[in-house]
Amino acid sequence: MMYHELMIMCEFIIGGAAITCKNEFEKINEDNLVTVSSQLRETMMSASSSESVLEMDWSKRPGGISETLNRVDDFKQQEILDCNSFVVIHGAGSFGHFQASKSGVHKGGLNQPLVKAGFVATRISVTSLNLEIVRALAREGIPSVAMSPFSCGWSTCERNIASADVSTVVEALDSGFVPVLHGDAVLDESLGCTILSGDVIISHLAAHLKPQFVVFLTDVFGVYDRPPAEPNAVLLREIAVREDGSWSVVKPSFEGADKQVEISVASHDTTGGMVTKISEAAMIAKLGIDVYIVKAATEHSLTALSGKLREKIPEDWLGTVIRYVP
Amino acid sequence: MMYHELMIMCEFIIGGAAITCKNEFEKINEDNLVTVSSQLRETMMSASSSESVLEMDWSKRPGGISETLNRVDDFKQQEILDCNSFVVIHGAGSFGHFQASKSGVHKGGLNQPLVKAGFVATRISVTSLNLEIVRALAREGIPSVAMSPFSCGWSTCERNIASADVSTVVEALDSGFVPVLHGDAVLDESLGCTILSGDVIISHLAAHLKPQFVVFLTDVFGVYDRPPAEPNAVLLREIAVREDGSWSVVKPSFEGADKQVEISVASHDTTGGMVTKISEAAMIAKLGIDVYIVKAATEHSLTALSGKLREKIPEDWLGTVIRYVP
Repeated sequence: MMYHELMIMCEFIIGGAAITCKNEFEKINEDNLVTVSSQLRETMMSASSSESVLEMDWSKRPGGISETLNRVDDFKQQEILDCNSFVVIHGAGSFGHFQASKSGVHKGGLNQPLVKAGFVATRISVTSLNLEIVRALAREGIPSVAMSPFSCGWSTCERNIASADVSTVVEALDSGFVPVLHGDAVLDESLGCTILSGDVIISHLAAHLKPQFVVFLTDVFGVYDRPPAEPNAVLLREIAVREDGSWSVVKPSFEGADKQVEISVASHDTTGGMVTKISEAAMIAKLGIDVYIVKAATEHSLTALSGKLREKIPEDWLGTVIRYVP
Repeated sequence: MMYHELMIMCEFIIGGAAITCKNEFEKINEDNLVTVSSQLRETMMSASSSESVLEMDWSKRPGGISETLNRVDDFKQQEILDCNSFVVIHGAGSFGHFQASKSGVHKGGLNQPLVKAGFVATRISVTSLNLEIVRALAREGIPSVAMSPFSCGWSTCERNIASADVSTVVEALDSGFVPVLHGDAVLDESLGCTILSGDVIISHLAAHLKPQFVVFLTDVFGVYDRPPAEPNAVLLREIAVREDGSWSVVKPSFEGADKQVEISVASHDTTGGMVTKISEAAMIAKLGIDVYIVKAATEHSLTALSGKLREKIPEDWLGTVIRYVP
């Protein structure tokens, strides 16, 4: 019931690669994070672009507390801002992966000291990143609240979600907050523990919250027919998902060639499971929810976040649209 | 059912004042935090004092990652350690209070921008402290996991706990982890939001988890008959709680004088609600759970954590015992 009162405009996924420095251990890409945060603010705060940003991170940082104090007094004169419902889910990027892979947390086995330690170490790493993202959003005046799947009591069985009550997320949204979730180490009924990936969280939330659209922010312009680095790589503009969950590239149109096969071949070797990504997006699209895969911190991501793409895709927009075509 | 399988040895409350620098904004008392963590490790890891500490914080920090890597390999040869069930709850100290009081989060009113911003700012501050405490414990080889009441979906109504499912905490304990909770900003059914204090969390968990004993770590030796700074302040060694919840000082014995009244008078003006603290402890003691109020990072806190006090209180032990006397 609560679910129907609630209109989620967008589920907004920040790929780990988009906000961290891939090859540097636990290093945030500050520039991207700031741009992503201000773009989200622009799109979620109705008619507020003119107003001064009201920081909601009053903690110690370079710049210090005196400035924060002034900020606090700003609020007294401030009108409350209408803000659309957003949910943010972020990947781990260069956080967590080292700890998880070193210990094999995803394989389970909490009775092994290495796995148990890895579970603790992974959560420390991903929650550190989560805190920094919440703070970056708060500095842009976005009422962001951290929600760790493990703390929310979410658990899996054989790596599939066994219990993931979304009511806490819904209540936060109802109160006008922006929940910020992330891939996390969780308890698994059969394995003891595993990693609950951001992608699984996205599909789960999409199915329950029924957002108008979902945006994947990544570090490339979208989905290509081969590794983007390759000279002849072609950006796939539009992918149609059919009733049976199968999908095909509708734009650009390739004569004859069966792109699906070609991509899957390419991806298994080199693109790190781009087909997996498309299949996940396809599952969301099948619910009638448009999915936009776009490069973070660009004009294209701003357009995607604004929801304008639901009416029409501009010719000069760079990204991949995945939508259900009955 | 699960609850009965589980034997919680101790609920372990770190007062904010014991681990932060009271008068310095968001400053942790590193020395105390390290000592508190190693004392907890000593008491929770059976027969492991001789073994090398297996760090579970593998994140970037002074000392760096190479050292972390060596650590990781240690685990492969390591026996799993028996560890007793502990729950850690910490106060905010110099974290969160500024944000909460500036905005009046405890009074509610999320429709006011200042309150909403304060809610976000308070959570950022207290979760930052929580992360540092989890990391300090993990460095001592304690499998600590952060659990924010707000993320756990805990909420209040008129500031009293309305919904606070402890099953997530129980499952973490069952899996051999040490849940680390803290006072937090939460949603309130009637007020919109408020502050759920660590003390309320303690009583709630004590009532549900039935620990063998509860330790309050503070920055003084225990409860005094007047402000500890005063020259003639007397440490109250033992307080007896009766069936009806009333309590009285049994050690030292004061001839005639009604200490209870005297303390309450003194406390209202000066000791910052020591009577409130005693009353909370008394509620826990009434459940048949001994409560020890002791100075953090001392030999006395180590003794209290070890559980030895349940057999006998050594003459030279400094602290306050609050227990039920039928």
